[in-house]
Amino acid sequence: MRGNLSNGIVSIKIEEGSKKPIALHEKSKFGKIEADFLMLSLIEASYLQENGRLNIYEDGTECTTGYLIDLLKQEELYGKYVVYRDLKNRGFVIKTGFKYGSDFRLYDRRGGPGMGHSEYLVKIIFENYDINALDFASYMRVSHGVNKKLLLAIVDEDFDITYYNVEWTRP
Amino acid sequence: MRGNLSNGIVSIKIEEGSKKPIALHEKSKFGKIEADFLMLSLIEASYLQENGRLNIYEDGTECTTGYLIDLLKQEELYGKYVVYRDLKNRGFVIKTGFKYGSDFRLYDRRGGPGMGHSEYLVKIIFENYDINALDFASYMRVSHGVNKKLLLAIVDEDFDITYYNVEWTRP
Amino acid sequence: MRGNLSNGIVSIKIEEGSKKPIALHEKSKFGKIEADFLMLSLIEASYLQENGRLNIYEDGTECTTGYLIDLLKQEELYGKYVVYRDLKNRGFVIKTGFKYGSDFRLYDRRGGPGMGHSEYLVKIIFENYDINALDFASYMRVSHGVNKKLLLAIVDEDFDITYYNVEWTRP
Amino acid sequence: MRGNLSNGIVSIKIEEGSKKPIALHEKSKFGKIEADFLMLSLIEASYLQENGRLNIYEDGTECTTGYLIDLLKQEELYGKYVVYRDLKNRGFVIKTGFKYGSDFRLYDRRGGPGMGHSEYLVKIIFENYDINALDFASYMRVSHGVNKKLLLAIVDEDFDITYYNVEWTRP
Repeated sequence: MRGNLSNGIVSIKIEEGSKKPIALHEKSKFGKIEADFLMLSLIEASYLQENGRLNIYEDGTECTTGYLIDLLKQEELYGKYVVYRDLKNRGFVIKTGFKYGSDFRLYDRRGGPGMGHSEYLVKIIFENYDINALDFASYMRVSHGVNKKLLLAIVDEDFDITYYNVEWTRP
Repeated sequence: MRGNLSNGIVSIKIEEGSKKPIALHEKSKFGKIEADFLMLSLIEASYLQENGRLNIYEDGTECTTGYLIDLLKQEELYGKYVVYRDLKNRGFVIKTGFKYGSDFRLYDRRGGPGMGHSEYLVKIIFENYDINALDFASYMRVSHGVNKKLLLAIVDEDFDITYYNVEWTRP
Repeated sequence: MRGNLSNGIVSIKIEEGSKKPIALHEKSKFGKIEADFLMLSLIEASYLQENGRLNIYEDGTECTTGYLIDLLKQEELYGKYVVYRDLKNRGFVIKTGFKYGSDFRLYDRRGGPGMGHSEYLVKIIFENYDINALDFASYMRVSHGVNKKLLLAIVDEDFDITYYNVEWTRP
Repeated sequence: MRGNLSNGIVSIKIEEGSKKPIALHEKSKFGKIEADFLMLSLIEASYLQENGRLNIYEDGTECTTGYLIDLLKQEELYGKYVVYRDLKNRGFVIKTGFKYGSDFRLYDRRGGPGMGHSEYLVKIIFENYDINALDFASYMRVSHGVNKKLLLAIVDEDFDITYYNVEWTRP
């Protein structure tokens, strides 16, 4: 597949009879259909490129993985990308968690949006930052309110990720 | 029962034939026996006083609940007391968690030290404080290493407590 | 070598046949390889720049040491950098200690990750801060649990560092 | 032996031909000889009383262990006593560390003052208190200056003691 990058979005033209972009959306839940285009976020597209499933062009020139990673860094999305890639490799379906004030919504390996509740809201925290107790309570309140689990993903300076499952409890 | 407060410790004299202080220690796991005294921490003693099970005297004068709460506040132990009281009311046996770097060790309603592993290590966090990501990792590491669950107790400005169960996970 | 700074990360392009960035990673254990880039943390990169081994560019302009130190200060990483530099100058291989709730893991001058246990976990404390007795117990517990030594690095107002070796003991 | 308590000091009269108080001082390094009296601190005397080696009288009435412990509490010496007793039971010779700004000086099981350097200066810290980083540095500096090791004794709310050996190091 071939996608075009502009404004931080990669669009794949859905040619007549082409099943790949549609499968990518319907089965693997990537991106969003907009007219006859599949629109992918930079994170989604970079992941597909790095896995050899997508060629990305900008102004007619093909983007290397290195170039895309540079772009992610410039957009301050590199840490987020590292977590996305790790969770994707673990088999999750991943959508943005924006509406819930979190980084990602995570669906079961076999599920997806519209196929039952997502299991997790993911909140990414970087090693050198503090977690404000109020913010922590707020992430939790939102997750609980929408019946999802909260997954904290702490990214350390080596870009290794440690995951913590947080649940509201009455001991 | 009658206890004497000095040096932040309340001591109950174990008179010959008096079973109450011994039951408090052996059954309910309060305090520590020292010669013919049961020694209670200010937190333990304040809890028993507030529940009408102990009269506390300082220099011959009986301490009111208000006076004890004032004392706890002076020692910056009031938040810790509030969590202690709440967990006690939920039926837990509570010991200090110091050796594990946490505020409390919590035992099952029917258990206690020497009767199987404690279920929880409790870490108290105040609403207005930030949780350092490193410290968070450290609490988790200790809990996991000793096979206990980590319970975060976040105390808000009204001294209401919200509990969070935190687990290290591989999603 | 030349690196590009964005999003707090410095990436060095690994040109075909260029051995320097690879040696930096494989021999000296700096950073992480990502596609055809060596990714360095701001602390690692600043250290290499200050030692004349790396030129760092941001938006096409070369960064001076002064500029980098300013950046580290903005990110509240300057104290951490000072300790990193000092330990690096003493010949240690340094990785993040996040998973252990500490600032750094320190490896023997000839070792490194995957080459035996790291010798130390390093915890940085600033002169004007108090060490919570519970946190102290927690650092110690983790170090002991993973069979590493605990090194406290106390940084004073002149950014001079004093090191303390702390061990759990039964006297 | 019989001692008289007044003003927080227990004095044992050294009768002609009585060897016990002298042995206590010369062999076990308790107290201080003052004219024909062996003067013991309340902590030393309470330890000997609790171990059945001394009867203590105040105004002609014998003091029970319970009474002495109450007294220690009133003088805010109970936590210090708990550490003293524990170290004594481990076989150390213990003298006050006052001159060094610490709680105790500790000598080898077979040594004592004037028989080589004391091994440790002991600093007692209570669970609920913070350790000021400057104070910490100061304890260490003093210990190092007099060629002794620093032993932190942290007393938790259950009056259990955890010991930490702290050494100034150049890693």
